[in-house]
Amino acid sequence: MKPLHPLRGLVAATHTPFRTDGSLNLDVIERQAAHLLNDGVKTVFINGTTAECTSLSCQERQALARRWCEVARGTELKVSIHVGSNCLPDSRAMAAQAEELDAISISAFAPSYFKPRDLDMLIGWCAEIAAAAPETPFYFYDIPVFTHVSLSMPDFLERAPSRLPTLVGLKFSNPDLMAFQLCLAAGGGRFNLAFGCDEWLLSTLVLGGTGGVGSTYNFAAPIYHRMIKAYEAGNLAEARAEQLRSAQLVRLLARYGFMGAAKATMGLLGVDVGAPRPPHSSLTADQIRQLKGELETLGFFDWIR
Amino acid sequence: MKPLHPLRGLVAATHTPFRTDGSLNLDVIERQAAHLLNDGVKTVFINGTTAECTSLSCQERQALARRWCEVARGTELKVSIHVGSNCLPDSRAMAAQAEELDAISISAFAPSYFKPRDLDMLIGWCAEIAAAAPETPFYFYDIPVFTHVSLSMPDFLERAPSRLPTLVGLKFSNPDLMAFQLCLAAGGGRFNLAFGCDEWLLSTLVLGGTGGVGSTYNFAAPIYHRMIKAYEAGNLAEARAEQLRSAQLVRLLARYGFMGAAKATMGLLGVDVGAPRPPHSSLTADQIRQLKGELETLGFFDWIR
Amino acid sequence: MKPLHPLRGLVAATHTPFRTDGSLNLDVIERQAAHLLNDGVKTVFINGTTAECTSLSCQERQALARRWCEVARGTELKVSIHVGSNCLPDSRAMAAQAEELDAISISAFAPSYFKPRDLDMLIGWCAEIAAAAPETPFYFYDIPVFTHVSLSMPDFLERAPSRLPTLVGLKFSNPDLMAFQLCLAAGGGRFNLAFGCDEWLLSTLVLGGTGGVGSTYNFAAPIYHRMIKAYEAGNLAEARAEQLRSAQLVRLLARYGFMGAAKATMGLLGVDVGAPRPPHSSLTADQIRQLKGELETLGFFDWIR
Amino acid sequence: MKPLHPLRGLVAATHTPFRTDGSLNLDVIERQAAHLLNDGVKTVFINGTTAECTSLSCQERQALARRWCEVARGTELKVSIHVGSNCLPDSRAMAAQAEELDAISISAFAPSYFKPRDLDMLIGWCAEIAAAAPETPFYFYDIPVFTHVSLSMPDFLERAPSRLPTLVGLKFSNPDLMAFQLCLAAGGGRFNLAFGCDEWLLSTLVLGGTGGVGSTYNFAAPIYHRMIKAYEAGNLAEARAEQLRSAQLVRLLARYGFMGAAKATMGLLGVDVGAPRPPHSSLTADQIRQLKGELETLGFFDWIR
Repeated sequence: MKPLHPLRGLVAATHTPFRTDGSLNLDVIERQAAHLLNDGVKTVFINGTTAECTSLSCQERQALARRWCEVARGTELKVSIHVGSNCLPDSRAMAAQAEELDAISISAFAPSYFKPRDLDMLIGWCAEIAAAAPETPFYFYDIPVFTHVSLSMPDFLERAPSRLPTLVGLKFSNPDLMAFQLCLAAGGGRFNLAFGCDEWLLSTLVLGGTGGVGSTYNFAAPIYHRMIKAYEAGNLAEARAEQLRSAQLVRLLARYGFMGAAKATMGLLGVDVGAPRPPHSSLTADQIRQLKGELETLGFFDWIR
Repeated sequence: MKPLHPLRGLVAATHTPFRTDGSLNLDVIERQAAHLLNDGVKTVFINGTTAECTSLSCQERQALARRWCEVARGTELKVSIHVGSNCLPDSRAMAAQAEELDAISISAFAPSYFKPRDLDMLIGWCAEIAAAAPETPFYFYDIPVFTHVSLSMPDFLERAPSRLPTLVGLKFSNPDLMAFQLCLAAGGGRFNLAFGCDEWLLSTLVLGGTGGVGSTYNFAAPIYHRMIKAYEAGNLAEARAEQLRSAQLVRLLARYGFMGAAKATMGLLGVDVGAPRPPHSSLTADQIRQLKGELETLGFFDWIR
Repeated sequence: MKPLHPLRGLVAATHTPFRTDGSLNLDVIERQAAHLLNDGVKTVFINGTTAECTSLSCQERQALARRWCEVARGTELKVSIHVGSNCLPDSRAMAAQAEELDAISISAFAPSYFKPRDLDMLIGWCAEIAAAAPETPFYFYDIPVFTHVSLSMPDFLERAPSRLPTLVGLKFSNPDLMAFQLCLAAGGGRFNLAFGCDEWLLSTLVLGGTGGVGSTYNFAAPIYHRMIKAYEAGNLAEARAEQLRSAQLVRLLARYGFMGAAKATMGLLGVDVGAPRPPHSSLTADQIRQLKGELETLGFFDWIR
Repeated sequence: MKPLHPLRGLVAATHTPFRTDGSLNLDVIERQAAHLLNDGVKTVFINGTTAECTSLSCQERQALARRWCEVARGTELKVSIHVGSNCLPDSRAMAAQAEELDAISISAFAPSYFKPRDLDMLIGWCAEIAAAAPETPFYFYDIPVFTHVSLSMPDFLERAPSRLPTLVGLKFSNPDLMAFQLCLAAGGGRFNLAFGCDEWLLSTLVLGGTGGVGSTYNFAAPIYHRMIKAYEAGNLAEARAEQLRSAQLVRLLARYGFMGAAKATMGLLGVDVGAPRPPHSSLTADQIRQLKGELETLGFFDWIR
């Protein structure tokens, strides 16, 4: 039986590995999985924003899903698959595949070229997707800064269950922590919220949050493991110090263009996921050398030992 | 040889026909083509915003392109294909297919989930797509209200040609008519601008515009033909009266949800393109009856005789 | 009796003259008025966006209003006063003063820190202001790019008259020309629309527009007079050429920071209105010299002879 | 000597009391002060967003400042004055008055009709205001959702001190908690951050935050006092439960229109601050009755005992 709350603790939103010619490099996935397991990360969220999902074809996303599930089989790693897109038949096909692959959950964001104008339309959209994977827990992925769709999540959780029987929670990539806490309390507390801003995950733990889905868990999980451990031990000063490291790291990467710098950092750790596809910019070899120096100065390589 | 300025006069941004189960209905394309030719519209812009391109899979877009080109063969109809998407390999594949199909031009909008932050990134994006159809005229499709990418088009036309040798102009779905006129003057006047707001096409004719790509040319071309004729004859009062009809028509359709109402109007004219895909909403049978009544009251069916 | 449509033809949205210490310099107003009359501009719109109204205190705005009306007395110049602000009592005080000063009209934009969420709230806001000047024609000043208040103007004109008996029209600083034409047609055509984008005024003439309120009419009126004359004579190519000059001029000024460059241009014409207040940036002496050179190269000083 | 970090703990952003005719009702300020002191709130932030500062004239803001300082004299209450506006001379005059009145600090938000485009312009703007109160600690008030000015606060704190010698911190009404933590760490930790989202204050305590400025501290301080006490005692579950009450309260008020409902709530507590000025909407007597019932059902009146 699938876990009720599949997205707990640290969930890595994985990068999509590309060759230098821009094609998919499925061979790297084993390396990504091993790296994560070695860092104590036991769930992956694939084909999300960090995976450049909108820059991938539907076929590529399905190939990634298949390969991740193959690699995970027989290990501790669990696979959650993002199936959101602007094209409903594509999303339904990916949802159906996720169910076949026995993914622990699926999720989908709002379409963002044509946009649902109200909750009714958004719930209808999600219901069509979720119905293609009737045995798989469904998360709505709220990320208004990318989709420009900004609707009330507490209201969503009140109204959606009757039309979305597989709904188990939200991937919450939204800075509104009042909504976050109200969502945690909604439905008698039965929903699972996976927070999407690694840089202030600690702020959600204190509200009752139970984990996050994010990109920095790919390369900086030790920082967050220590943070969570300190938090759970009641050592808030130490937890805060670890969160500050995360913030400093993200700020540094953002100066280089976050996606390109994050993928380059993976390479520096021996997991060569390549450069991102356009319209993301890539780092030059010189920039990667400079980034490495700045990461050393920051203390990053010590932090993640 | 391909025309230098392929998007002149009235170009219909065609609807994608769906069956009631939401699947593509390629059989309707002949009917759409015949209707347009009957109305004197001789160029189609397929797979654009009106075609719900972001709601289609890449395979569906390629099937539509193939069918439109088959239907057009041997007629006066010319086919321009929009190949923009968030996924560069998909866009390149569609561009390559367009060249094989001998489309008169291609176009692409900016990616809109991940966004190019400056002109350099945008031109790089376009160059990758255009290079996949090296013999086919390329238009950048500027539509900031949908893509949330808002960069200077006069600057684009100054900087892009060296990296975009096939660039011939813009599909300009942007209300900034100062930029429109500067673009017309750019490069010694060598660029072709197809305006995207049917509701005030007349305002661009007076600036030197030569036509438009739009959705209402599917069902209301006679209004615009009369408008252009009156304009060219120097009868501005009559031209203005026709433009007002267009504005009143669009306002009426917008009250029902523009896309659903526009497709329903096609149905009322005997061209059954079905309802739009989600997240667009569809009109109920009752709403279609009511819309028909309002169109009659407005005088629409007389206007398009 | 006041004219029914006070904002016809070219209306200059005047600059507020400041001394080098940033204080009001009322002495320059005579010079501004003489310059405009010499250029054939017979109506001024004072205390608007070009006047940096939000950077002025209410007292300063009232001093400007008083002085403009004194200067205009006995000349052909007519004065329209913008009284919009975020503070309703201030706006009402300015409206009452405008009536005392016998201004030909008042106008007000929407409050923009706290924003009216719907037309009902916006109409209520306008009604409170207009009621303080019950004998003075009122214009709503729609400028969504600054106020971030974007509501339907055709609907406004349908619903407002019963609560806004002095409403005569709109200062329309909004690029949506479909709304513009529908507003011209609203109420049987009884409303006066003054267009706010000088850079494409021609595009509104062809829709039935009768003039504009703008900043470039302060220093480039001859261009627009020729444009309107050509348009009225049916010489559209010549009208278009003049409009292009306007666009090229605005583009050049915008590169220096439009407000600072426009005020510097006034200085180059012998009307020393000083620099703008922060947060607008000012041009250095070097920049003004460079701007002068670029204006000469463009042909500006010949255009306005 | 003034405290280094004047905005610590709970700081009430006070409401401006109006009579039914919309005029200032300075008589209520004693009542407001007594209510706050009774609730253990010892610092007020006057003339801010909650005070409807943009709906007030400069003279009204100065009258409020004078009265609050008179009322506070001889009590434990300390007064911090917001002097931000779109008009620099007004802001400078209010800053100078604040210094004369011996306010513990001043603050100013960014101008929001004309907007500073970069940090340099914003710092210049703040410097002009702060210079008018050279002995008074200065806070920049970052509230991008209202001003539409969104610049990096960690960068602001790095660059501003050389030009803003009186800068002591930020009123941080911005949901970006990564920026919040980086700002706390900036300058060796010497800056004071007052968080502006009462609804998730707890999330900032865990990051090292030391308090907040907000509107709900006017009527719900006991909830937050218990929350902070529980937090400091390491009882996070209890702290979280109190924060949830705050979130539920804010959600309820927001359904009625937050500002009007918050002022009505003050009235229900015997502090009649009247209704807000337009464009805020007011509650009808019926709505106030209904609100009272909903507050009772929620448990609000018990929570604040």
